Order: sequence, then C-alpha cells, then structure tokens
Amino acid sequence: MGKTRLEAFSDGVLAIIITIMVLELKVPHDATWAARGKLLPVFLSYVLSFVYVGIYWNNHHHMLHAVRQVDGATLWANLHLLFWLSLFPFATGWMGENHFAALPTAAYGVVLLMAAIAYWLLQKRLIAAHGPESVLQRAVGRDWKGKASPLLYLAAIGLTAWNVWAAQALYVLVALLWLIPDRRIEQALQHDPA
Amino acid sequence: MGKTRLEAFSDGVLAIIITIMVLELKVPHDATWAARGKLLPVFLSYVLSFVYVGIYWNNHHHMLHAVRQVDGATLWANLHLLFWLSLFPFATGWMGENHFAALPTAAYGVVLLMAAIAYWLLQKRLIAAHGPESVLQRAVGRDWKGKASPLLYLAAIGLTAWNVWAAQALYVLVALLWLIPDRRIEQALQHDPA
Amino acid sequence: MGKTRLEAFSDGVLAIIITIMVLELKVPHDATWAARGKLLPVFLSYVLSFVYVGIYWNNHHHMLHAVRQVDGATLWANLHLLFWLSLFPFATGWMGENHFAALPTAAYGVVLLMAAIAYWLLQKRLIAAHGPESVLQRAVGRDWKGKASPLLYLAAIGLTAWNVWAAQALYVLVALLWLIPDRRIEQALQHDPA
Amino acid sequence: MGKTRLEAFSDGVLAIIITIMVLELKVPHDATWAARGKLLPVFLSYVLSFVYVGIYWNNHHHMLHAVRQVDGATLWANLHLLFWLSLFPFATGWMGENHFAALPTAAYGVVLLMAAIAYWLLQKRLIAAHGPESVLQRAVGRDWKGKASPLLYLAAIGLTAWNVWAAQALYVLVALLWLIPDRRIEQALQHDPA
Repeated sequence: MGKTRLEAFSDGVLAIIITIMVLELKVPHDATWAARGKLLPVFLSYVLSFVYVGIYWNNHHHMLHAVRQVDGATLWANLHLLFWLSLFPFATGWMGENHFAALPTAAYGVVLLMAAIAYWLLQKRLIAAHGPESVLQRAVGRDWKGKASPLLYLAAIGLTAWNVWAAQALYVLVALLWLIPDRRIEQALQHDPA
Repeated sequence: MGKTRLEAFSDGVLAIIITIMVLELKVPHDATWAARGKLLPVFLSYVLSFVYVGIYWNNHHHMLHAVRQVDGATLWANLHLLFWLSLFPFATGWMGENHFAALPTAAYGVVLLMAAIAYWLLQKRLIAAHGPESVLQRAVGRDWKGKASPLLYLAAIGLTAWNVWAAQALYVLVALLWLIPDRRIEQALQHDPA
Repeated sequence: MGKTRLEAFSDGVLAIIITIMVLELKVPHDATWAARGKLLPVFLSYVLSFVYVGIYWNNHHHMLHAVRQVDGATLWANLHLLFWLSLFPFATGWMGENHFAALPTAAYGVVLLMAAIAYWLLQKRLIAAHGPESVLQRAVGRDWKGKASPLLYLAAIGLTAWNVWAAQALYVLVALLWLIPDRRIEQALQHDPA
Repeated sequence: MGKTRLEAFSDGVLAIIITIMVLELKVPHDATWAARGKLLPVFLSYVLSFVYVGIYWNNHHHMLHAVRQVDGATLWANLHLLFWLSLFPFATGWMGENHFAALPTAAYGVVLLMAAIAYWLLQKRLIAAHGPESVLQRAVGRDWKGKASPLLYLAAIGLTAWNVWAAQALYVLVALLWLIPDRRIEQALQHDPA
C-alpha cells in the first residue's frame, strides 16, 4: 500500500493543528496596550507550540521519506501520534490563558510526553516493517534525542510542583535540541540512495 | 475520471473533522483539578469519535485503493458520507458536554447509523461500477461487519431509553470490531495485484 | 504552469468551508428535545449549503479536468470564486440562526449570486485561454444552467421582501437543477480524449 | 528531498488561514440592517487580508515552481513565513472589530512587515541553495517590490499615530502593487525551461 495518502492526511491534520492554535489567540474587544499585555503569555505559548508542531512535521517528513510501504498497524500508529498532537491547541490555550500556572503547565508536559511516546512507537513500527538493515534504522541510529526527550518531559512535569519556570525552561530546551539540524536521515539516504 | 481529487478532498474533510472535534474541548478559564474533572466526559467522547473517524479514514483508504475510476454518482455518494461524518464534532460535543445524557447519546447513535448507511451506499455504488468479479467485491465478501454495525447502532439507540451506559458499551464494541485488523482488501489485492 | 497546486489549494479551501459550516451548529447546553427544535432551521440551512458547496466542488472538479494550463489571471479568478464561497458558513449561520428572516435570506441569495458570477468569470477566463475549439467550450455548450441560475437568485432576492419561503424554494430549485447529473464535460472528454 | 510535501503542507496552512478569517465574521444574533452596518469594517478588513493571503499563495506558488530541491533550513524558513501568515486572522479580526483604531492598525502592519521579511528570508535561502545563475535568481531580479514593501509597511505603522486612514491607504497600495501581474518568474522559466 502506498504512503501518499498517509502523508497527505498527516499533512492536513498537522496544518490544521498548527493553524487552529491561533484561534486560542482570542481577539480582544478593546484596542488598548493593556489588551496586548494580557495576550503576551498566550502568544509565547503559541510560539512554543508552533515550533513543536513544526519539529514533528519536519521529523515526520524525514521519517516517511525513508519508508517504502505502510500497513494497517502503521496507519493506526500514525493516527495515535496525530491524536496526541491534536491536543496541542487545547493544552497550549489552557497554559497560556492561565499565565503558566502549575497544573496546566504539567498538563502541557503530559501531552508533549505522550506525543513523544507515540512518535517512538510509530518509528519502532516502521523499523520493524523495514528490517534492522534498513535506511531508516541506520538513520535513526542510537536515537539519543528520542530517548532523552521523554525523560526531560517527565522531569519538567515533576518540576511544576516546585517552580513552573524551570519546567518551561526544560520545554524550551528540548525544542532547541530538536531544532539543531538533524542530518542523520539525509546522510543515510545519501549513502544509500536506492 | 481520476480518483486523486476525490481522495484529496476526502482526506481534507476527514482531517478537518478529526481536528475540529478538539475545539469542543473548551479551554477552562481556571487552572484547578475541578476544571479537569468536568472535562473528562468531553475527553472520553472525543477519544471515541477520534477512533471512529480513524476507522472511516482507514476503510475509505482501503476501499478507494481497490477502485479504478469514479463517476458523478460516486462523487455524490462520497459527499453524502462526508456529510454525516461532518456531524461527528457536533454530536460528540453535545454528548460529552451533557455527561452522556440519554437524548444526546441517542443522537450520537443516529449519526453513527447514518454514516454507516452512507458508507454502505458508497461501497454498493463502487461495486456496481466495477462488477461482481472486481477486486473490491471479493475483498468486501459477505461484509458481516458492515451488516452488523447498523443493527448494533439501532440497538444502542433503543437502549438509551433504558440505560445509557449499555448504549455506550455497544458504541465501543462496534469500534473494537472494526479496529481488529481487516486484511480482506489487502489479501484480495495480493491475490490479484493487477 | 501546472494545475495541480491550484486543484490542491481549492480542494483544501472547499474542504474547510464545507466542514466549518458545522461549527455554526452550536452545541446546545442542555439535553432536551426543545434544544433540538431550535436547531432545526440551522440544520436545514446547513444541509442546503452543504449541497451547494458539493455542487461547486463537483463542477470545479469537472471544469479543471478539461483544462491544460493555468496562468496568473486564472489563479486570481479562482481565488475570487473561493472568496465568495468562503462566505457560505457566515451567510448560512446568519440565515439559520434567525429562522429564515427576510434580510439574512436575501444576504444568502447575494452570496449565491456572487459565487455564480465568480464561477462564470473563471469559466470564461479558462475558455479564453483554451480557445473556442477547446474541449471545455464544447463541454460547456450554451450553458443554460449557468445563465439561468443568477436570474433565479435575483428573483429569490426580490421575493424575500414578499415571501421568504418562495425565495427558499427557488434556492432549493437551483440546487436541484445542478444535482441532476451534468454529463456534458464527461461526454465531450469521451469524444475527444486527447 | 522533494518539494511536494512542502508545497502540500503550505497549501494546507494557507487554505486554513484564508478560510479561518471568515470565522472572525461573527454571525450577528439579529436580522436587521444595523447588524450589517457593524459588520462592514470587519468585512473590509477581511477582504484586504484575503487579497494579501492570495498574493502570498500566488508568489509562493511561483517561487516554489522555480525550485528544484529543499533542505532542512528551507523547511524552517518556510515554517517561519507560515507562522507570521497564521497571525493574519487574529490581526484582521482585532483591526476590524475595533473599527480600524490606531493600535490594532499598527499591529496589522507589524504582521504584514514580519511576513514580508520572512518571505524575503525564504527567497534568500532558496537562491543561496540554487546559485546566482539559477532561474530563481534571474526571475527575482532586483526585486524592487520585495524591497519597497517593508519600507511602505514601516511608513504605515508610523502613520497610525497621525492618521489611521493614511496607513490603511498604504496597506491597500502595497496589495495593488503585488496584484499587478508579475511575469518575472514565468518569463525566466520560458527563456530557460530546462
């Protein structure tokens, strides 16, 4: 079975998620600077989530690029990932509207954690379908980023009980880790372009 | 006429439906555990609908895969299916926000029933266009799932007058029936990959 | 320049329009039959608009199928059509929520009228680019439906001052006119499949 | 790496942005002419933003047409552009709902300015990847429109302190500048169709 429709459907869902978050930026009914001030935390949480969805789209794009065929289990592993990603607008809005209070910040971390686990399950499923000698397996390698991220999310969730800004710092840190260009799959494809 | 744009349009509509449901998860204006508690039924009904839309996308994907051409009647049969699926976010939100009250639970069942009938009409139309010897006809076979589902939905709608949780259990049961991998079309394509 | 991205973008916009209309179906906060009663006019106007957007998607699909290339003017003629179609959710919601009052019913007719004119301009532009001997010109023929529809919309807009149900009847009539399968382009393509 | 998914994702996001703006057109709860009067500034700001997003889609379409491959940096430059464009519905709604007050009009200009800068960065990145002899570089040429637009936006932002209509006139002027057909890339492709 082809991967075209899987990519098209995922692109559609990710495009909607990334754009729908802006709907949480409620239009203020007055035109004062105070209105803008109240928007700042919502805006910042929107930027962070935009970067996260961008990272997922980017990595998803690369991973599917190294894939030859998809089966039913892959479709469901992909839908499972999209489910957790579709909670981003909700978690983002809740966190931003409550000015980074502890509980919404922890909830945001849970959504990040579940999305990371879902991504890892999808990757595992694809590697299982393509074999340990596949381009994908070599591209992923030891996958230290994929292993470190859930641990950092867990740490951040714990930190919210103590200091919410430490948790936010960890969320930003993980985003930066992934923003550093990841040339693994591009390189593996270059060595084995078949 | 090609099936590419039909697939692209359906993917677009399904991607929007599955993502728009999350908008029914209204961001609570406080940051307490109580706020989360009130969200639970909304969240659970969202998960159920997400799985249902996922099943429809999956099956639609498989069915169109076995199809060679589409005509005007097929386009309208497909739009009819999309119409009932587009009512999922509304039915889901109404059911979740009223904590699975009898009337919204029955309404949810009606939407499930109409979507199942619309899917069956689309399948019938495609088989009629491709002939009884087609890959699609052999793949669908006796279609016991497609025949049992509307009956189970009808039973659930009736049960809402008596016990709403029995109805919910039936909705979950039908979803599980379809989640069990359905290799019919994949197998039929393997035997006749032309 | 290829027509693929024009089709993809139009499909995206139409998919969003058709799905977003359901957001006008506000989830009622109670679970009674009275809540359902109030929804009926909104639901009926949603069904009518769903059919109209379906007709536009169908015809757009057929028209683009007979097209070879697109230029800048075509892109803008297409965007102009999408602009008027994007007002459907608004006009639909306003009409449904006010139980088919005269002014919103007339406004709905104006949006229908402008969309019909925009479609006619796009068709004219495409025929101009492909020549009077093109498949598209022969497929469109005398285009009596395209010429009658704006007149019927105008009549309906006038009728709202007298009887709003007469106007609604005209809207339904035009939709039925277009729902009758239009095999012109399919036939023209069959005679000249080059 | 192919550019297909980049185009598909961008088309998806742009289609959602252009359609979501209509959600800012809140359905009035009465059916009087007064309701329509209040809508006029919202409607006019919607038209302006629709034209702007249309221009961006058009130019993006042309630019990607002249591109052969994309890398990770291009993906992020593209996401950066989409980020600023995704703020259009918010900025449009804020400006329209406050009847073109000074602060929201200036904020609208800032979003236009940032989007223009993001577009310029994407263009620069693509030219850097394709070389100074590329079709794209010749197509862009001296790019006086791309250079003049940010200056005009800056002027408009300054003018809001003095006269908000002068700023609006500049926004309309820049849109008209870009609406004049830009045949540069089409011509460059014709001379060098390889």
